[in-house]
Amino acid sequence: MEKPEPKDLSYYYSRVTMNRQASKMKQFYQYFLIPGIGNLAGGLPNPGYFPYDTLEASTALPDRFKPTPNKPVDPPVSELGNCTLSDSPAVSRVLVPHDSAEPNLLRKIDLTTALQYGTAQGYPPLYSFIRSFVQTNLHPNVPYKGGPEVILTCGSTDGFAKTLECFSNIWDEERDWIREREGILCEEFAYMNAIQAARPRGLNVVPVAIDDEGMLASGKGGLEEVLASWDKSKGKRPHLMYTVTMGQNPTSGLLSVKRRKEIYSLCQKYDIIIVEDDPYWYLQYPSGNRLSMKARGKPVSENFPIDPAHNYNASSGGKSSGFDFLDSLVPSYLSMDVDGRVVRLDTFSKTVAPGCRLGWITAQPDVVERIQRITETSTQQPSGFVQSLIAELIMGPSKSGDPGKGGSKDGSGWKVDGWVRWLEGLRGNYERRMQLMSTILEDGKYLIQSSRRGSRLSASDEEEYEVLHKTQLYDFAYPMAGMFLWMRAHYETHPLYQDVEHQRLAQALWVFMTTKPYLVLLSPGSIFCPTPEIMAEKGWQYFRLCFAAVNDDVVEKYSKAIVKAFTDFWAIDDVKKIDDLLDDDEKVQARLANAAMQNQVSLNCHGAHEM
Amino acid sequence: MEKPEPKDLSYYYSRVTMNRQASKMKQFYQYFLIPGIGNLAGGLPNPGYFPYDTLEASTALPDRFKPTPNKPVDPPVSELGNCTLSDSPAVSRVLVPHDSAEPNLLRKIDLTTALQYGTAQGYPPLYSFIRSFVQTNLHPNVPYKGGPEVILTCGSTDGFAKTLECFSNIWDEERDWIREREGILCEEFAYMNAIQAARPRGLNVVPVAIDDEGMLASGKGGLEEVLASWDKSKGKRPHLMYTVTMGQNPTSGLLSVKRRKEIYSLCQKYDIIIVEDDPYWYLQYPSGNRLSMKARGKPVSENFPIDPAHNYNASSGGKSSGFDFLDSLVPSYLSMDVDGRVVRLDTFSKTVAPGCRLGWITAQPDVVERIQRITETSTQQPSGFVQSLIAELIMGPSKSGDPGKGGSKDGSGWKVDGWVRWLEGLRGNYERRMQLMSTILEDGKYLIQSSRRGSRLSASDEEEYEVLHKTQLYDFAYPMAGMFLWMRAHYETHPLYQDVEHQRLAQALWVFMTTKPYLVLLSPGSIFCPTPEIMAEKGWQYFRLCFAAVNDDVVEKYSKAIVKAFTDFWAIDDVKKIDDLLDDDEKVQARLANAAMQNQVSLNCHGAHEM
Repeated sequence: MEKPEPKDLSYYYSRVTMNRQASKMKQFYQYFLIPGIGNLAGGLPNPGYFPYDTLEASTALPDRFKPTPNKPVDPPVSELGNCTLSDSPAVSRVLVPHDSAEPNLLRKIDLTTALQYGTAQGYPPLYSFIRSFVQTNLHPNVPYKGGPEVILTCGSTDGFAKTLECFSNIWDEERDWIREREGILCEEFAYMNAIQAARPRGLNVVPVAIDDEGMLASGKGGLEEVLASWDKSKGKRPHLMYTVTMGQNPTSGLLSVKRRKEIYSLCQKYDIIIVEDDPYWYLQYPSGNRLSMKARGKPVSENFPIDPAHNYNASSGGKSSGFDFLDSLVPSYLSMDVDGRVVRLDTFSKTVAPGCRLGWITAQPDVVERIQRITETSTQQPSGFVQSLIAELIMGPSKSGDPGKGGSKDGSGWKVDGWVRWLEGLRGNYERRMQLMSTILEDGKYLIQSSRRGSRLSASDEEEYEVLHKTQLYDFAYPMAGMFLWMRAHYETHPLYQDVEHQRLAQALWVFMTTKPYLVLLSPGSIFCPTPEIMAEKGWQYFRLCFAAVNDDVVEKYSKAIVKAFTDFWAIDDVKKIDDLLDDDEKVQARLANAAMQNQVSLNCHGAHEM
Repeated sequence: MEKPEPKDLSYYYSRVTMNRQASKMKQFYQYFLIPGIGNLAGGLPNPGYFPYDTLEASTALPDRFKPTPNKPVDPPVSELGNCTLSDSPAVSRVLVPHDSAEPNLLRKIDLTTALQYGTAQGYPPLYSFIRSFVQTNLHPNVPYKGGPEVILTCGSTDGFAKTLECFSNIWDEERDWIREREGILCEEFAYMNAIQAARPRGLNVVPVAIDDEGMLASGKGGLEEVLASWDKSKGKRPHLMYTVTMGQNPTSGLLSVKRRKEIYSLCQKYDIIIVEDDPYWYLQYPSGNRLSMKARGKPVSENFPIDPAHNYNASSGGKSSGFDFLDSLVPSYLSMDVDGRVVRLDTFSKTVAPGCRLGWITAQPDVVERIQRITETSTQQPSGFVQSLIAELIMGPSKSGDPGKGGSKDGSGWKVDGWVRWLEGLRGNYERRMQLMSTILEDGKYLIQSSRRGSRLSASDEEEYEVLHKTQLYDFAYPMAGMFLWMRAHYETHPLYQDVEHQRLAQALWVFMTTKPYLVLLSPGSIFCPTPEIMAEKGWQYFRLCFAAVNDDVVEKYSKAIVKAFTDFWAIDDVKKIDDLLDDDEKVQARLANAAMQNQVSLNCHGAHEM
């Protein structure tokens, strides 16, 4: 059967995007191909004047870290990897030469090309690797004709900014009619940096209710309800959706194929473009469901069959990625994108390092072409330093006369196999930390208090016996993906719940945890609320815990500290202690603000973007 | 005397910029400073999982290339440097370690910090180096209180896009009143990538007449005339100016201090923000004036005293930069920016390599703060790969327990001295190429034809004698800065000037040069015209020649080829030959387009952005 063409979505392009001309230079570039032509036309510096003669790196081999199984009942496939660098793990030497003799620009990796002006779609070798990986391995089942195109970005925040620029018009309350206001849907707890990119443009940020796996299609506050009951006096019905479907930030939700299908259908019905931001896609944890079953007798979501042989790609009758690991993962919205309405954001931030500032957009070719035009007059291209060093690491040098060296033992590059193996190792390490944190928190979520009571056992006999009170301190869903554990504190069981304003109580607990002996900093739920209403209604009840950034021993130590802090905080039954905590905190804040002022830069260094 | 505060320009912020909230996280970050705090709040990956254990590079020593004198009559100060890499020049080994023990974040250069999420203002060590270089060496005389602030960008195109976002509102012909349309001034020949960034936003692009040094303050088409006679039916009088004042692209103009003062005054009078894009500031060629004097008996511009001791900084009674080289350069608009109305764009594209995608913006602190907010939700920061490799190259490791290595012989980093010396070497090499190209073109600009005539010397004597016809083929100003030579073809002297439509004649010459035996590709003037009127009026008469991208021998070969092509083209006196050239070209174009289609990526590689 002939695949359908992707839908023409150009009526959703912003006015600025409509105005962007395709580069008129293309016709001109053709002349560069005249054999032997002397090019005095370009405005380029001379590559002989770059101060870098080579770029090099010591890098990991792909099997540095131990994977966890794709099917949670199996043992890890390799015991080779270690968790820390202290064991002097095997390394490879990557080298990007100044000049490669390779004539094919899709295989030539050298500084003369990588550090020169390049193409907006990306450094040709890296672009071609990513394009092939995306089309063949990551999304082998995109249903529209010709499949998706890719363009490299300076990371997903850049990718999202460009997508917004492409698909949204600026609206201003004082100037424009409310009927012209455009909107963007998002999860009711969301990654706020994305929301902060949308809001200054005047976009109406419209939250959709979620459960433990992610956005709800139906039910109260779910997508259907939000769209069907849209009140036009608030502006246009949203035509954009921003969603993180795998290891959602902050909730760690992993959206099942079943739910995806329901949501995609609604997006078809209401003609919505889905912007799928998936930095954590390869961090999916089958053991989350298993641990939940074991501890609680139920899975995180009924939509994830416990059957460990469940294969999401195969179940949809599609092609295999070629790798068991990739086949085991919930696939992207792209896998069901018959219309071409999915714009997917990927990043190297979590697979290599955030400082790469490198990622890519996958979408139908027309959309990618528009984003290319935006790129030409903004970032132009990601840095050639990172593009060449990653290209050399993964692809390695071409065979003939290329003095480069890639990241494999033999210098040939990781290739797709190595890249997938690397991702499996990362998944393994993060999954084990998730298990560690979850287990400690599961064990500590009830406060068990006992009291001795006297009771009459019989008419003649009186005996003392023990009564156990079980108080739930907090709850969470086992993380099915990502880097976070999302915890709801059960303030309603706190002795002072009736006496202290609830948000104040929550604030006091958060401060309490930053004091000795607990000394642990969590992200308060309030900073993930896309609207003030959500913050007031329930945002204050939550904390986000990151198990990814610190080593296992630290995860263990502070997970225990959190349990201890909860236990001790629930022992506070004097309102004055709450007042004191918050008063003290004001002094602490003042002192820290002062220290901060004197050390502005260092303050800004702590992963400021990525809360 | 107390310096004035910079002027509050916030009334020029765009609506989107006004809407941008300062990050609410700042208060939160303070808690990161609590001693011993366990941070489960950030959303960061673990630096132990970055596949790069070190980054390394072989780099040039700062004295690799031979400088030219600051005063053209002096010999070069050093004969150490070489022009090409073939001599196996001395190299240094730069190393960015995985971890540095240095506690001061402004001096700590390692992968744990550089490849992690960072701050939007830039990687702290590199940011602090640039800030200090800017304030102390590059612009020691900024007149407003506190001086300017800096923020790193992903290159100047990114910097300009952010500046436009900060200071301009989107306007749409079909939707908005003409009276709301904002405008941007630029040189009448301009760097079109910047214009293409402005135009889709609906900005009115308003060219200002230029002469050989740059924008005209007064006179026909000059800034005063454009602003004083502004016709409001075309929209608002422009409040933005985009200008390249040093080695202007495409004209190579170098704007004198005298002219700067006149233009700055007008910008004060009409309240205009000056966006100064200066990728070529360190490529100023005192020998341009000397060569012009020698060959033509007049300088490129009377505003540049031939007195080689003329020191632009000292002449304005200011502080020295600390370096003769920097003192010898025409200073930025910032040096007279009492109001804080200058936003300057710098880049490493020409000092290190375009592929860095690294630069910075210098402006008054409030403007930089707004651009920081824009950065937080778009590019976040330049790639840590390039930031750390450049920081290590120039700054080198700190003294205590830091296993890094910088770009000096002893591994300590180039420091400011080395950086300035590197720039001098680059200036030297590009200046010599400028001299080479200019000299060849100067020698070839007239077509000398002789004919023998009979004439009566006296009543009784008749003798044959020779008559020389001198026809000017083209003209140019000696480049005073930058990478280009801007040439005007004197089509009015061509035998077919009356018979062929002029733009057709120009097109034919351009095509003629791409054919054998000349085989040389120039940039046609038409691609530097910000408006169709300028293209029709005079754009077609010009070519831009780049002497920077290719080696000396290639500059020589193709400069000669150009002279030959002009000479031969002026010998064409049959209209049919012009027709044939253009017909053939259509076939060539079709063939090349076909080849191009099959090789799309490679086509896009030829410095597509940087025409």
